[in-house]
Amino acid sequence: MKTKSTKSRRNFLKKTSLIGTGIGMLPLMSYANNPAVLPPDNMYLIGPREGYSPQVGTLLSTMTMMRAWLVRSVKDLSIEELDFQIDDKSNSIGAMLLHLAATERYYQLNTFNDMKWGSWSDEIKKEWDVPMNLGEKGRQEIQGNSIDYYLNKLAEVRAETEKEFAKRDDEWVMKSEPFFGDLPTNNYCKWFHVCEHESNHRGQIKFIMKRMPAA
Amino acid sequence: MKTKSTKSRRNFLKKTSLIGTGIGMLPLMSYANNPAVLPPDNMYLIGPREGYSPQVGTLLSTMTMMRAWLVRSVKDLSIEELDFQIDDKSNSIGAMLLHLAATERYYQLNTFNDMKWGSWSDEIKKEWDVPMNLGEKGRQEIQGNSIDYYLNKLAEVRAETEKEFAKRDDEWVMKSEPFFGDLPTNNYCKWFHVCEHESNHRGQIKFIMKRMPAA
Repeated sequence: MKTKSTKSRRNFLKKTSLIGTGIGMLPLMSYANNPAVLPPDNMYLIGPREGYSPQVGTLLSTMTMMRAWLVRSVKDLSIEELDFQIDDKSNSIGAMLLHLAATERYYQLNTFNDMKWGSWSDEIKKEWDVPMNLGEKGRQEIQGNSIDYYLNKLAEVRAETEKEFAKRDDEWVMKSEPFFGDLPTNNYCKWFHVCEHESNHRGQIKFIMKRMPAA
Repeated sequence: MKTKSTKSRRNFLKKTSLIGTGIGMLPLMSYANNPAVLPPDNMYLIGPREGYSPQVGTLLSTMTMMRAWLVRSVKDLSIEELDFQIDDKSNSIGAMLLHLAATERYYQLNTFNDMKWGSWSDEIKKEWDVPMNLGEKGRQEIQGNSIDYYLNKLAEVRAETEKEFAKRDDEWVMKSEPFFGDLPTNNYCKWFHVCEHESNHRGQIKFIMKRMPAA
């Protein structure tokens, strides 16, 4: 665990600074190599964050760490690799990344807008139902995008989460409704799920990456 | 997400009560169907827990939920399914379960006993290094065990974690050392990793389960 993470971060920093020197030649800095999205140096100090209530900040800090590890795993993938299907029932890595953004979007509507799960507008469904549900439609429709496309989508949705988190307090994280298994489920739990769900798919992404044909 | 979880818990409860009626006929109640290990009804209310300091209890509540979802995914697997190798570089589901117990054991030594990562005794290494490192040795040595074996190992290690958590306070969770990426890493972060690591492997376990030959 540890050694791998240490090495990967070092590589990440190294690559970032190398690319940084050539910045003038690039038409647009790619998301994954943008120093502005470099994980913060306090990302392994899980706990309260400035601008957020203590519990909300602590929750957000776990999500920030998880996201950094996800981005580190996928940031150098090519379009072909993002589209790669390991078998006929698999989801591509690209589709899984968009699925994570879709999940976060739906939990925003459920927990920030107090909408019953699935009661979103047709417009929202049109944008997010395919990546949410994956399967055959996902395989057909989600392909041909670069890593920047997926990471920007994830970052856009996360920015909205952070904006809304900042408006809420510790009472809100404890607010619950019957949800998982019809049991009382609080907002902390729903957002913990959004977070561990990234790890769930990151596990699958790493499994697939080890089995991709060499470029 | 939601629908699946709801259904699975209902099935879990149903199976448990069905088996409960035949308990007298069973020589030993299996771990997975033991009502005593039924997830608590407050498991989706992430937050402080009686007997633990507020942050420690909140952290533990995420670990309890994650563990319940892991157990739910694997509890009905046969020895053959637990040993199944999807290809020659894969880890079996059984090996991954023992790997999770090993990881938790090592984080106990690091965070409860203040031991430098990897500085454990030969006795400890002899028990846990193979499941920790997996790979070829893991494939050879970890097989032929029932689900009860793995779930009991996980539960044993978790019981120790809970015992030690109960002795500690919120100051302890914030204690840090250079760890991931050589950055300051607090105990909350290390245990959050133990937790999300279960989700990471649960993602892989579910991926493999969908591809196992039908019994």
